[in-house]
Amino acid sequence: MRDTLPEDLEKRRHVIAVIRNMFRIYGYAEVETPVIESFDLLSAKAGDEIRHRMYVFTDLGGRKVALRPEMTAPVARIVATRLRAKTKPLRLGYIANCFRYDNPQMGRYREFWQAGFELFGSSRPETDVETLTISADLMDRLSFRNYSFKIGHVGILRGVLSQEGVSEENQGKVMGFIDKGKQSMALKLLLKLNVSNRGLEIVKKLFQLKGNNVNKILSEGEELLSNYETGHEALVNLKDILDLLAASGIKVPITVDLGFARGIEYYTGMIFEVYTPKLNIALNGGGRYDKLIELFGGEPTPAVGCAPGIDRIILAMMKHDLFPKKVVEKRILVAPVNDKLSAKAFAIASQLRKTDFLVETEVSGKGIKKALSYANSKGHAFVVIVAPKELAEGNVIIRDMGKEVQQEVPIDKVAEVLRKG
Amino acid sequence: MRDTLPEDLEKRRHVIAVIRNMFRIYGYAEVETPVIESFDLLSAKAGDEIRHRMYVFTDLGGRKVALRPEMTAPVARIVATRLRAKTKPLRLGYIANCFRYDNPQMGRYREFWQAGFELFGSSRPETDVETLTISADLMDRLSFRNYSFKIGHVGILRGVLSQEGVSEENQGKVMGFIDKGKQSMALKLLLKLNVSNRGLEIVKKLFQLKGNNVNKILSEGEELLSNYETGHEALVNLKDILDLLAASGIKVPITVDLGFARGIEYYTGMIFEVYTPKLNIALNGGGRYDKLIELFGGEPTPAVGCAPGIDRIILAMMKHDLFPKKVVEKRILVAPVNDKLSAKAFAIASQLRKTDFLVETEVSGKGIKKALSYANSKGHAFVVIVAPKELAEGNVIIRDMGKEVQQEVPIDKVAEVLRKG
Repeated sequence: MRDTLPEDLEKRRHVIAVIRNMFRIYGYAEVETPVIESFDLLSAKAGDEIRHRMYVFTDLGGRKVALRPEMTAPVARIVATRLRAKTKPLRLGYIANCFRYDNPQMGRYREFWQAGFELFGSSRPETDVETLTISADLMDRLSFRNYSFKIGHVGILRGVLSQEGVSEENQGKVMGFIDKGKQSMALKLLLKLNVSNRGLEIVKKLFQLKGNNVNKILSEGEELLSNYETGHEALVNLKDILDLLAASGIKVPITVDLGFARGIEYYTGMIFEVYTPKLNIALNGGGRYDKLIELFGGEPTPAVGCAPGIDRIILAMMKHDLFPKKVVEKRILVAPVNDKLSAKAFAIASQLRKTDFLVETEVSGKGIKKALSYANSKGHAFVVIVAPKELAEGNVIIRDMGKEVQQEVPIDKVAEVLRKG
Repeated sequence: MRDTLPEDLEKRRHVIAVIRNMFRIYGYAEVETPVIESFDLLSAKAGDEIRHRMYVFTDLGGRKVALRPEMTAPVARIVATRLRAKTKPLRLGYIANCFRYDNPQMGRYREFWQAGFELFGSSRPETDVETLTISADLMDRLSFRNYSFKIGHVGILRGVLSQEGVSEENQGKVMGFIDKGKQSMALKLLLKLNVSNRGLEIVKKLFQLKGNNVNKILSEGEELLSNYETGHEALVNLKDILDLLAASGIKVPITVDLGFARGIEYYTGMIFEVYTPKLNIALNGGGRYDKLIELFGGEPTPAVGCAPGIDRIILAMMKHDLFPKKVVEKRILVAPVNDKLSAKAFAIASQLRKTDFLVETEVSGKGIKKALSYANSKGHAFVVIVAPKELAEGNVIIRDMGKEVQQEVPIDKVAEVLRKG
């Protein structure tokens, strides 16, 4: 857990503003869900790894609850319940803090910020393509020049494993190993589960079928899976998606990986992650999850979406120096030279704020010398000095901190002078 | 706990935007703290009522932790530690979700949003006045026309009770009763604690001294407290604050209440709450807490601040119909008449979004008739129809949903026509 101090918070605000603007542009309505929900709901289909890292406790009403480890399940719950009757397709967005008891490491925090775009109501390739193009547009809008998508389809491996008689639970374990880069552990487990030699060979070959030569890999995959019907269907679905994406002309730099898996169990179709150079963590990831809404009691509702990791994006943007230069705003300090003039200083500051000047009032009884040095250290552009002699004539002194000059100005002209200065 | 659906979320965003703009205008740097912190830290000086309603649990590392029930303590912790060396005065702002296991009732949620303005480094009346004027300005900027401040000073009652030999712990209990409107319970407890008759009489009279005749009440208080030195000092401090506020000419509608207490134990000076008509809950409240930074191991650092309750403000704004009319933005649907044109629809939508049009793509394979009725129900201004015959000539059809007319337009003129339309 960590505090976020002003400078870092501004970075997060920037990324959030870009994402929120995309909600608007792409028509995703923003929702928020509670930080605390029932453990059962949050852990359903989350995958073992996440399940074991959840913050779980019993609330004062005796219920087993947890802090949300991710947002797709809560949003799916809303779709299954409160938004059940909404016209489909339904597009929802969120920006939320989530919680996992991780070992702290680069880009991973126990409380982390995640955004999401979720599209409900259709299983057509068009919806997968929308998710992919949104994810690419997000990278562009954040000024990333170099990034790549790793795309796969859980149906490929799952199809093969199902046909080889591997239970869904064990499939989850296999996918978990692969997600952590432990392909050899996955193969060992499959061996233990008495998967046929042919099956093992296929899985091994799928692990090799990756790269940016998309068409070649896909056709090799088609051949490889000719005897695995559902795996083959999944591959064709992936091909349809990538063909449509290519035909649209929208630039999404792609690597396919036919042996790709993600740790979360609810995925049923296309899955992807987004990477930038020099950073070995995914900045964004997502995929299709067609069964989750039903699991929460809703109508069968296909769904696809992505969840950009805000903390990781910030890290990558810092690494690649992508944050826009901060616009320096003109700040003003109104400083009375003594106690008796505090009320007048408040009145002047209040007046300036009404026309949207950024104004601090000197409230701590500093002498004028210290007030000027404070203003200097904080980078104020001007100090409005309220002093008795000048005030008697209806004037104040405006000091330009940059130019180190000052002038006497009638109180009702202060805003005008500051605006020009 | 509750979900926040799009329309309500927009209301919260509006209030948050107003507050965040005030951070900027008044020079409060925004910080965020973790949702989960050590129970000891969060419960220190929180007051019994809050302490008993905290979400407490043991994390996987065996630490007793809790969800933050309020933000002043975490922000004070930052000031005592990470921001220890910062020049004073230090102004910090926050907007955060907090958690209390309350019985749900109007304007109270178990997860609720609170903002705050905290000013560290000076005990001068100027700083109290800054907090009060910010609180009034917030009400003005949210368009409240009718509101009132209830102002008191914990030093008055505490001063009398200390002199009467009441321990600090018991003072906390007494203040807790008063906070809940149980003055008679407070008096009963004082009787049991052997407070002198004179002391009891003074306390009873303090309960009566309230109203908007500020000067009269303050001078009656001064007389009443002539034999209670620290209580009297507190009253003089309150008078200084209110005099300075009056002299500034900034309009803050005030009721004083010399027997006023708030439930949180860390207050040491002026305290206040803000109310609107027809709603018996405070929309904002705050006060001075000069000892809290020391408690967290920092240098002695006087502090004053306020914590507007965002959910309550939304409730009051709805009651008084203060939310600005929603600006209807022109939304566009790009709809292909068949599958084969999906890629082209994506390309056109992508181009439009680059110039900041708000664009949905029809992705669910609806026929054009259904797409138009969907666009109608969602209030889209235009539908860009991608059809084979027109496309062959480099054109699309733009349908104006309001006027119910359509025209054929060259693809490179679409943005221009939509912008005019």
